[in-house]
Amino acid sequence: MSISVIPPYSQPSRNRQVLLVERPRGIPAPHHFALDEGPVPSPGEGQLLVRNIYLSVDPAQRGWAADVANYAEPVAIGAVMRALAVGVIVESRHPGYRPGEFIYGWLGWQDYGVIAPAQILCHVKNPAVPLSAYAGVLGMNGATAYLGLTKLGRPRAGDTVLVSTAGGAVGSVVGQIARNLGCRTLGLTGTDAKVALCQQRFGYDLAINYKSAPVAELLATHLADGADVFFDNVGGPVLDAGLRAMRVGGRVVQCGTASVASWNPPPEGPRNEREVLTRRLVWSGFVIFDHLADFAGAVAELEAMVVAGTLHYEEDIDPSIDSAPGAIEALYAGENVGKKLIYIG
Amino acid sequence: MSISVIPPYSQPSRNRQVLLVERPRGIPAPHHFALDEGPVPSPGEGQLLVRNIYLSVDPAQRGWAADVANYAEPVAIGAVMRALAVGVIVESRHPGYRPGEFIYGWLGWQDYGVIAPAQILCHVKNPAVPLSAYAGVLGMNGATAYLGLTKLGRPRAGDTVLVSTAGGAVGSVVGQIARNLGCRTLGLTGTDAKVALCQQRFGYDLAINYKSAPVAELLATHLADGADVFFDNVGGPVLDAGLRAMRVGGRVVQCGTASVASWNPPPEGPRNEREVLTRRLVWSGFVIFDHLADFAGAVAELEAMVVAGTLHYEEDIDPSIDSAPGAIEALYAGENVGKKLIYIG
Repeated sequence: MSISVIPPYSQPSRNRQVLLVERPRGIPAPHHFALDEGPVPSPGEGQLLVRNIYLSVDPAQRGWAADVANYAEPVAIGAVMRALAVGVIVESRHPGYRPGEFIYGWLGWQDYGVIAPAQILCHVKNPAVPLSAYAGVLGMNGATAYLGLTKLGRPRAGDTVLVSTAGGAVGSVVGQIARNLGCRTLGLTGTDAKVALCQQRFGYDLAINYKSAPVAELLATHLADGADVFFDNVGGPVLDAGLRAMRVGGRVVQCGTASVASWNPPPEGPRNEREVLTRRLVWSGFVIFDHLADFAGAVAELEAMVVAGTLHYEEDIDPSIDSAPGAIEALYAGENVGKKLIYIG
Repeated sequence: MSISVIPPYSQPSRNRQVLLVERPRGIPAPHHFALDEGPVPSPGEGQLLVRNIYLSVDPAQRGWAADVANYAEPVAIGAVMRALAVGVIVESRHPGYRPGEFIYGWLGWQDYGVIAPAQILCHVKNPAVPLSAYAGVLGMNGATAYLGLTKLGRPRAGDTVLVSTAGGAVGSVVGQIARNLGCRTLGLTGTDAKVALCQQRFGYDLAINYKSAPVAELLATHLADGADVFFDNVGGPVLDAGLRAMRVGGRVVQCGTASVASWNPPPEGPRNEREVLTRRLVWSGFVIFDHLADFAGAVAELEAMVVAGTLHYEEDIDPSIDSAPGAIEALYAGENVGKKLIYIG
């Protein structure tokens, strides 16, 4: 992206930060955070000062804020909330990076981040693609969809692919990649508006409002022949019903468990091991951080689809960092349509 | 095996059969079966008449007798109970088979079976190995252990492998193959006598009586570093505890669900999808019938281990077909030590 297309991002003289001040037991709510303000930090040798532009809001932040065994170290109490963001380098003390370059990485919920190059996930290169896309469809969400589906779900042309949170930042990409691969796609989503979005914008062969009837009944009706791949972001009763709709040899990708409010203690549900056995499922857990070596390649594939017009995305952009403390709660409530971002440029 | 080592098997003039007469809802009990007697059948063109010698008793027979969605067609009411057995061909109407040859296949719980060659799983070839072994350690149980462990469990030298029903017909082979591959092995079994058997005979690094304390506590103590592979034959609370003792990236092989008395309706248990996700497990269902192309190769590997003395087995042999109706129930009660067979030669 050439310097000429950079909008005139403000450069505030203070650094607003969203701090985690209380450990959530379930879904993080506004009172777990506090807005703070401090001086603009200075990069050390080898570091970069980045002016953040689009802050990402992700279901995974719930896990990062929790203090239970997980796939990431918990965010410390009093620290800036861990978050991905797209930003522009405003000061570089690393020979490989120049001011004006746009990057996507671990910048946190704050105006300015000081980071080392290792905290960059992706360089923003293509001026034909809006900057915000790199925080969603071409960021962690898109790469999660691409790598989770292709590496663990392993769809083949003609397969039937079931997707939960089908209209979400990850699910919508899963559905479109599967369709692009020649699969039949069935999406589960939570509102009639999202059903329409899934079918009209994201190209699902069929989308269903999973709240309109018991999920098992909906799948018995609309997925009578079964699914070969189930990309699940929610767990809970939707997962249970999906497992029981799998074909023999099906692949289940567990990418999230967003429907379950608390895991301490784990809630009960119907035992699923007999489904694993008799359907010979392969049920795998996917966490993007195991696949960072493939991240750039996935983004390149997704970027090509966006440019070619075969991968669409929606965004739900809040205009102020003031909305951050309530953003994760709103995300879990399913209030957003499209990738939830906070614009602070 | 040359004709000279054939013991003088009797050739009764009538064919005793164990019929399934009532559909079990859970574990098959004696009243679900009836002993019947009919004429010795005659093979048709291309068929073989086989005098059965060792009838196999397997946990999987519960599923074959059930009338629920499963991986095999249910045994019809009034039909001979489906079973594997080792027998000797007494009449052949197929050019590829001669009387006196020993085979292992789908012969049923009866004195004589009439089968086509497609119902043969394995030819019995090695006179250095007792005939009964081909109904267990060199039959479906051994092949299940070998293929389930190597293809789905994928152990590497140095891995820790957890096995349930560690002293059973499948589990004991899993433990020994894992040990032979350079893994550390931890076995769960249900009596102190079987603990001793697992450690002294089957070479487990450690075996635990899972009834001696809550399984989660036992694993916290004895598996504090976690397992890379969990070969589970039981499901239920043992599975739940095992999942929570897995290392990141661990492989869970679901080979049976013997601890669960009834699946209609499925009992409840703690939700396990968050374990799949955060530990990035690969949890797969194994049914040997998906792997029949690899069966003979697996048996050859196992036979070599038996001959080399690196694979031991135990047998629990009933001397009469009269015990068949109660045999599955006894198996689920864990009364046998070693592979349960019925000798009817």
